Amino acid sequence: MAGTDKNRPILTGGPAIILVEPQLGENIGMVARAMGNFGLDQLRIVNPRDGWPNEKAVSAAAGATYVLDAATIYETLEQSLLDLNYVVATTARQRDGFKRVLGPKEACGMLADRERVGERIGILFGRERIGLRNNEVGLADDIVTFPVNPAYASLNIAQAVLLMAYEYMGTRLLADDGLPFGGAEFQPAEKQELFGLFSQLEGALGKRGYFRPPEREAVMVDSLRAVLTRPGFSAEEIRVLRGVISSLDRFSPDKPRGSGPPDE
Amino acid sequence: MAGTDKNRPILTGGPAIILVEPQLGENIGMVARAMGNFGLDQLRIVNPRDGWPNEKAVSAAAGATYVLDAATIYETLEQSLLDLNYVVATTARQRDGFKRVLGPKEACGMLADRERVGERIGILFGRERIGLRNNEVGLADDIVTFPVNPAYASLNIAQAVLLMAYEYMGTRLLADDGLPFGGAEFQPAEKQELFGLFSQLEGALGKRGYFRPPEREAVMVDSLRAVLTRPGFSAEEIRVLRGVISSLDRFSPDKPRGSGPPDE
Repeated sequence: MAGTDKNRPILTGGPAIILVEPQLGENIGMVARAMGNFGLDQLRIVNPRDGWPNEKAVSAAAGATYVLDAATIYETLEQSLLDLNYVVATTARQRDGFKRVLGPKEACGMLADRERVGERIGILFGRERIGLRNNEVGLADDIVTFPVNPAYASLNIAQAVLLMAYEYMGTRLLADDGLPFGGAEFQPAEKQELFGLFSQLEGALGKRGYFRPPEREAVMVDSLRAVLTRPGFSAEEIRVLRGVISSLDRFSPDKPRGSGPPDE
Repeated sequence: MAGTDKNRPILTGGPAIILVEPQLGENIGMVARAMGNFGLDQLRIVNPRDGWPNEKAVSAAAGATYVLDAATIYETLEQSLLDLNYVVATTARQRDGFKRVLGPKEACGMLADRERVGERIGILFGRERIGLRNNEVGLADDIVTFPVNPAYASLNIAQAVLLMAYEYMGTRLLADDGLPFGGAEFQPAEKQELFGLFSQLEGALGKRGYFRPPEREAVMVDSLRAVLTRPGFSAEEIRVLRGVISSLDRFSPDKPRGSGPPDE
């Protein structure tokens, strides 16, 4: 989807994303893209199967090549963790041991708290095929797992990175909702504008005998007004509706405005 | 990542995922996978560029082929929406007009509330290259956008589906906590009824030269549809409005029905 604003600052900081022995360049590229989307920029790759740099990663990154260019490569997981203070490991499988298991939102809250007090933080992601080994999970402080459909839990590595980056972005949004643009506000118009709509429409309908039989007129007016009141139309919406009614009321079919005298 | 438990039930229900003219089979497959991960199973595809079925979609679905097998294909967006009551459109670009803009969590809360009271719901996703056109966004009730990094906002379609599916899964976990949710008081009509209102009104206005000058017609149609979509009119409300339009369209002022021959 489009919408990128090159003039707005690139978000930076946040956790390092650490990929352990990723197999496919496409996935590394899509990880970079997901990081770019949600403002992460620190990619660490442990022993990528197909070497580095990787052309398939570049083409899958779709413009987030600044993330790939800044990526750092390590021979072992331990080396990639040396300067970090707090690390969580993502996994879809239950592990034995003494680690806490967190959901993505909870884990990102924890990571953000650490970053706020100056700690360096990271998130571990395993190989496409088998994930992280037990001894690798053992190097992390806590475990994160995703609330997936139990019958189909196999999350692509770039998707897992996306969810963590998305939740981390959520921790950065304070009062701001973080959305890049807002919609119309829809303040309902003042009642006098709504009543103007009523009288215009009821006048046009009355002239056509819409409110029949006479003893039903009051009920029909009430229904019509209810339908027009319930949406809480804004002043601008009411202007559109009044233009529509004017057109229907003043002009006959097949005698469009401008092509003949109005049918009044 | 591994962790799938074949003995646990497959989650079903949730919003229909509607892809409008998707270009790459790989993306359709990854959408299916994302849906499988977070328990969605209703995929609708409008006019896929490379035809259907699509082998690349199958190989990218990585086991979520049950989603692809059940996918339904449509020639037009309108056809894909006919039986739905409430639809949100995802977009990364600001649009003019009369629609609310929601974040993913807010939108999924809204969708879940609707599903809980028996409405049929859907989420629209646009083409990889250009997203949704304005008139397509115009058919949705509300807009959703993602709190992305403003400097790098281009979200892959499967990633966008993943985030919505993930947030929708979140609403289901909440529901398990038994939190009280308010239901909608007015069930919006199925889209086919709303589209009937559009075509009746636009026909009547077109015959009167309302959509002038011609280069403004598309914008005027979009505005009009936005005004009529935003309230989420019920089937009964639409019946009232259609009666009003019929009366305005078929009869001339001062020649009420029954008091003389209709002006046809």
